[in-house]
Amino acid sequence: MARANSGPVPVVVMGLGAIGREIARAALQSEEVTLIGAVDTHPALLGKRLDELGVPSPIKVEPGLRRGPARGPRPVVLHATGSSLSAIADQLLAAVKEGHPVVSTCEELAFPWVRHPELAERLERAAQRAGVTVLGTGVNPGFVLDRLAATLGQTLGPIRHVLARRVVDARGRREALQRKIGAGLTEDAFDALAAEGRVGHVGLIESAALCALGLGIDLEEYEEEVAPVIAHEDIPGGAFVVPRGRVAGVNQIVVGLQDGQERVRLELMLALGAEPPGDQIVIESDTRLAVDVQGGIPGDAATAHLVVHAAPRVASAESGLLTVLDLPAGR
Amino acid sequence: MARANSGPVPVVVMGLGAIGREIARAALQSEEVTLIGAVDTHPALLGKRLDELGVPSPIKVEPGLRRGPARGPRPVVLHATGSSLSAIADQLLAAVKEGHPVVSTCEELAFPWVRHPELAERLERAAQRAGVTVLGTGVNPGFVLDRLAATLGQTLGPIRHVLARRVVDARGRREALQRKIGAGLTEDAFDALAAEGRVGHVGLIESAALCALGLGIDLEEYEEEVAPVIAHEDIPGGAFVVPRGRVAGVNQIVVGLQDGQERVRLELMLALGAEPPGDQIVIESDTRLAVDVQGGIPGDAATAHLVVHAAPRVASAESGLLTVLDLPAGR
Repeated sequence: MARANSGPVPVVVMGLGAIGREIARAALQSEEVTLIGAVDTHPALLGKRLDELGVPSPIKVEPGLRRGPARGPRPVVLHATGSSLSAIADQLLAAVKEGHPVVSTCEELAFPWVRHPELAERLERAAQRAGVTVLGTGVNPGFVLDRLAATLGQTLGPIRHVLARRVVDARGRREALQRKIGAGLTEDAFDALAAEGRVGHVGLIESAALCALGLGIDLEEYEEEVAPVIAHEDIPGGAFVVPRGRVAGVNQIVVGLQDGQERVRLELMLALGAEPPGDQIVIESDTRLAVDVQGGIPGDAATAHLVVHAAPRVASAESGLLTVLDLPAGR
Repeated sequence: MARANSGPVPVVVMGLGAIGREIARAALQSEEVTLIGAVDTHPALLGKRLDELGVPSPIKVEPGLRRGPARGPRPVVLHATGSSLSAIADQLLAAVKEGHPVVSTCEELAFPWVRHPELAERLERAAQRAGVTVLGTGVNPGFVLDRLAATLGQTLGPIRHVLARRVVDARGRREALQRKIGAGLTEDAFDALAAEGRVGHVGLIESAALCALGLGIDLEEYEEEVAPVIAHEDIPGGAFVVPRGRVAGVNQIVVGLQDGQERVRLELMLALGAEPPGDQIVIESDTRLAVDVQGGIPGDAATAHLVVHAAPRVASAESGLLTVLDLPAGR
């Protein structure tokens, strides 16, 4: 087996918001990695011990990555500071230049060639030069609507169409996410924000691109629709009550086309009280494959575990910018 | 991306029984590979054109692999001649010594370290020496009960228990499979064959080992049970009618234990009229993940496509004996 077991891989978590803390917790649970550092520049976090942030570790939050010794492998940076690649690319480039492999939850990094081809090229070159690997992953993009669909497609011949649908009841999710999907807004306010791309999920087009690539489908264009889900009655149970008539969340659809024909359809409903929560993948080939994840894969925790499981692979992979499609199935 | 597209990979199918023909058909459908040869020594097949065997290609069945040029990569051998590794190891070793990467449907090759550690070691050494890769795959072992479970487990932390269950109505499968699972036998005849290991599915322990490895579970022992499924009424629709009271197929269970505790449970019911057909995976971690494949992944066709999709990976992978857990998700 090529699976040489050379002991746990040292990792540093960068960004200690809700997801970063989940990643730190997942890293502490894992035998594959050893958490050796935590980085965040936010004044409220800097200098705190992780156990003051709900993560059972005495590690202190530092303002930046430590300079390593002149030789030898650097820890893998588990990066969770933002969804926008333009906003965080400098953090990635700096880590890469210091020789750190990087696994990031940045949604746009999951498949940066669609929206940010120039940044993708810069990251690819920097990673090659430093001899390290960079990967964007998470539950979505990175798993449910793309990597899992591609894995299932390994049992099929040429694919005619794929539908992947995820319905998440956002009541159990962090408040930042509930705000991001527009919960509590009036429909007008939602539409105004949606027109500016300031509400909804980031990364659905990236998922569509990954899904298509993994299933051998050549997409030529994408259409994205971000529609509000309206509360038909008051919805309690979230970070705040959504009154009847207000927005409960988002119903987002990306269609990928080839020769004007729909080949990929991804649907993501993220709303307070959305039901029934669950994930579904339907692939049309010679036969039809339909798979259901009962209740859906849990969001933030899954993202954290996916990041941690990717770390040993990224530490040993050939250098460059990878996608989750390059990851093996096992631990 | 590390996904260099260097054109289709040349492949040769070895073994032109039902599965080998499915593989040849799948290869012809794929843009990832080019079918350039077919090998079988059976007198009924030798010299025939594939299109005489239901595969739309003029390629002729030859008795052995052609000697390639002194340099350059050899075609990948897609091997489908048997389930028993002892019986086919010499075929694999001969192909490897000639420099061919190999993807085989041999069930015991999916994880040969459990039942055949010495053969595994020989194959590993031969593959390393020749600089090629050898892999065993198929739907089962190789996908439903192991690779898919491991992939799903990437979203979870430490795993307490995994159950994977597959129910296949064997009426739609080839007659050889219907015989292999004891269909039509009396219960006594079934039990006598089962005691000698001559009835039932080959590879469930291999699946359990792969499943455990991919989910980070260290198994110490396996228990296997092969029980008959008795027809409660006449079952038509298969290659022959199974009369009421006779065996309709097999219900096979493998339990993997650690410290005497069940950690992995695989259940495979392969029987004429088995219902409801489908695949189910339930993984217990901090949370519980339950996934259903409606109707189940189609058997023989899925094996053929899995073999074909693995060929480009095996052609470019580092040398040695791999498992499906090392394969990436995408095409």
